[in-house]
Amino acid sequence: MPTSTLATHRETITPPHINPAEQLRAIGREFHARGWSLGTSSNYSVVASRNPLELLITASGKDKSALGPDDFVRVDAHGKVVDGSARKSSAETLLHCLICEKIPSVGAVLHTHSVWGTILSRQYLPQGCLRIEGYEMLKGLEGIGTHDTFEEVPIFANSQDMRELSQRIAARLAHADFSLPRQPFHGFLLSGHGLYTWGKDLAEARRHIEIFEFLFEVFARAAMLAGAVPVPGSSSNRSTSSSNAQ
Amino acid sequence: MPTSTLATHRETITPPHINPAEQLRAIGREFHARGWSLGTSSNYSVVASRNPLELLITASGKDKSALGPDDFVRVDAHGKVVDGSARKSSAETLLHCLICEKIPSVGAVLHTHSVWGTILSRQYLPQGCLRIEGYEMLKGLEGIGTHDTFEEVPIFANSQDMRELSQRIAARLAHADFSLPRQPFHGFLLSGHGLYTWGKDLAEARRHIEIFEFLFEVFARAAMLAGAVPVPGSSSNRSTSSSNAQ
Amino acid sequence: MPTSTLATHRETITPPHINPAEQLRAIGREFHARGWSLGTSSNYSVVASRNPLELLITASGKDKSALGPDDFVRVDAHGKVVDGSARKSSAETLLHCLICEKIPSVGAVLHTHSVWGTILSRQYLPQGCLRIEGYEMLKGLEGIGTHDTFEEVPIFANSQDMRELSQRIAARLAHADFSLPRQPFHGFLLSGHGLYTWGKDLAEARRHIEIFEFLFEVFARAAMLAGAVPVPGSSSNRSTSSSNAQ
Amino acid sequence: MPTSTLATHRETITPPHINPAEQLRAIGREFHARGWSLGTSSNYSVVASRNPLELLITASGKDKSALGPDDFVRVDAHGKVVDGSARKSSAETLLHCLICEKIPSVGAVLHTHSVWGTILSRQYLPQGCLRIEGYEMLKGLEGIGTHDTFEEVPIFANSQDMRELSQRIAARLAHADFSLPRQPFHGFLLSGHGLYTWGKDLAEARRHIEIFEFLFEVFARAAMLAGAVPVPGSSSNRSTSSSNAQ
Repeated sequence: MPTSTLATHRETITPPHINPAEQLRAIGREFHARGWSLGTSSNYSVVASRNPLELLITASGKDKSALGPDDFVRVDAHGKVVDGSARKSSAETLLHCLICEKIPSVGAVLHTHSVWGTILSRQYLPQGCLRIEGYEMLKGLEGIGTHDTFEEVPIFANSQDMRELSQRIAARLAHADFSLPRQPFHGFLLSGHGLYTWGKDLAEARRHIEIFEFLFEVFARAAMLAGAVPVPGSSSNRSTSSSNAQ
Repeated sequence: MPTSTLATHRETITPPHINPAEQLRAIGREFHARGWSLGTSSNYSVVASRNPLELLITASGKDKSALGPDDFVRVDAHGKVVDGSARKSSAETLLHCLICEKIPSVGAVLHTHSVWGTILSRQYLPQGCLRIEGYEMLKGLEGIGTHDTFEEVPIFANSQDMRELSQRIAARLAHADFSLPRQPFHGFLLSGHGLYTWGKDLAEARRHIEIFEFLFEVFARAAMLAGAVPVPGSSSNRSTSSSNAQ
Repeated sequence: MPTSTLATHRETITPPHINPAEQLRAIGREFHARGWSLGTSSNYSVVASRNPLELLITASGKDKSALGPDDFVRVDAHGKVVDGSARKSSAETLLHCLICEKIPSVGAVLHTHSVWGTILSRQYLPQGCLRIEGYEMLKGLEGIGTHDTFEEVPIFANSQDMRELSQRIAARLAHADFSLPRQPFHGFLLSGHGLYTWGKDLAEARRHIEIFEFLFEVFARAAMLAGAVPVPGSSSNRSTSSSNAQ
Repeated sequence: MPTSTLATHRETITPPHINPAEQLRAIGREFHARGWSLGTSSNYSVVASRNPLELLITASGKDKSALGPDDFVRVDAHGKVVDGSARKSSAETLLHCLICEKIPSVGAVLHTHSVWGTILSRQYLPQGCLRIEGYEMLKGLEGIGTHDTFEEVPIFANSQDMRELSQRIAARLAHADFSLPRQPFHGFLLSGHGLYTWGKDLAEARRHIEIFEFLFEVFARAAMLAGAVPVPGSSSNRSTSSSNAQ
């Protein structure tokens, strides 16, 4: 159950003119409070320029509940630090670069580690994706206008070798057409690890995190409820004596 | 698990003389924090006048955690914007109008998207309703004075065609007598989508949301517990002396 | 999962010289935020005098997140309002009076409606009690100094007839010796309704609520986990070298 | 579900020069709000000196949401109070001393009582440990650099005899080499009771609590989901055309 405070949310509604580092710091405080970025997990980035592609991304190993103004580095399309600082960027910088490079409309990338995302990404790795179907809340993903559809969230086996992992993800992205009004998918999962999603700006990427987390929780709890109340069309809370009850 | 902050709740206790838009903004912040109105989901309205029927309703596509003073529009009984603004009202405006028209005592309508409501509305759609029975908390629904009763919350299949959907709901409302001291039902569910409830004023509608969300969580968790501890009357944590003890 | 804010908790740490109504208001805000006193449910009391027995108790039908300074009434041992006000005391006043009368050490009584308490009180009504055994957290109940014990929380069928219900509870209390250093039980459940607990003062009663809620959640979730991982002593997440390994 | 407020987290980011008692008070407020230190449960310590070994530790029986500046005592390696005060240290002081003595790098020890830790420690006591394997979040434990590993958290049967219990734990610690860059384990569980973890300083110990709590919740919920969706590799939400579709 996502939980956080009004104060938290207010902070995230930073006006667009607020500088990106401040916006990412607010995201860190909010997502830590909601249980999606505990410890030093997670990393966030915004596109700082498109020609050439440069990202502002969280520095490596920082507590996301307490990002300081200097806990960000600017990297180029290959993940190389270009702001002259000695700080290291997040270990997963290459994945952020890859997403921004392959999907030209992307303005921000958010990566989180939630309980439900972790569980589902592991349980459904054999299928290669998590198929979420028929929920109204899918309309919160950019470009989706009906519940009568599905989102297949790709799931990749986890790896500590970022080059190898980014190649697998690149291959998957190469088979998808992101120039359509509705993107083929709005995020992907690393198994036992977490969620990557994105948006044209930070507000859209944040909304996608929120929507995905809601859908993951619904998906997992619905499966548990269906396991406990196994026969569809038969409610265990009605005591009826009729032979063809309700 | 309902969660929210003191700050949140305090805000919702706005004195009745506070203007309706401010009250709806506070509801948005609170419900977002409690996980019931994530992203741009949900919509809220209050009856602005009865003769002719006019509603003040949330504008379309707004983040409910950050409703601005101008994120509301005034519509007539047919959902037409009547305040001269260019803003669009929520896509589901027709359902708000319908409820206010068919139930003369209604002063406010709230529509939310919660995890438990979403799950139960889908699991129990084949029955056509969710029957909640025997709980003391039912007394939180206006006009109910005992636990020894039940509330059957109608469940409708979801649709993006508001005219078609509102006709189905209108047909159901037409079969119910809302002039009784106890309403035949206090809300309904759209499958895989969310809850609509109402009240004579915003405070009552908010209480109904709170009560329904509690009951939905209890209902779903009770079913899961019963699934895990399947034999009623036999507690797995009691050491018994029976010969065929588990 | 209990959730609440720092602000909430701070408020409840009111110095003992703060007047009882202020302390009860803070309890209301905290318990509403933690999901234990939603809507107008719950009622709270403190012993205002012992000779004769008089209680300060929440007035009937108030939103517990927003108790005002005047939302309390003073009643005598029979539940009769004695402060000259026209306000009605909580419908369940008789139960508060009964507890204070039968257990002379009681200084405060708290009654809450939580999700887990509601579920367990209904699931285990056939046994007549909820037996909680072997948890360290039991030591949070006054007079218990070891985990190697059990607490049997009596469960009573719910009723709207307070006189009838209080007679059943009185009969149960009459069979228990509350003069012992360790009380025979520290609270009881009404089925599908909620928890009553008490303490020598409000701080102790509040701690008992917190301890019971923790134990209820642990009890219910442990049963669900045991249902999902049914063979004790066999963990599905261990890779073994046995020939028929999972 | 981890829950807490921005305010809470901010407080815990006390600069290192803040005195240890203030830091422990902030930890108490935060952990109470997150449901890990309810009532008077839990105890916390920091190493005040190494030669000789002395700890600053929470006094016995204090509400962790409201620790005062004087609710701490200084003890020696044998748990004897050495600051001349009449206050009693936590009952479990000996376990803190033991950990600090056996693991020279330890600067802080935190002991909490959470719902998931309590449940898992009891369910998996027969195995003697909880084996957590393959999760990216394991990298939040100091010295772990890959998800492709496991952490075996020892589980000890609970006891009120601290001397007997500390001997059992000492025997287990004696078999482990804590001079390695990666510690053999980063914490242990007492069955039905709670978690002990540590770090080189309070920030690291706090991160370990946060990481363990996340992993416990993931572990338990994954087991429940796997119980409800029993056939690995087969998702109930995919419509397949295979002949033996479930």
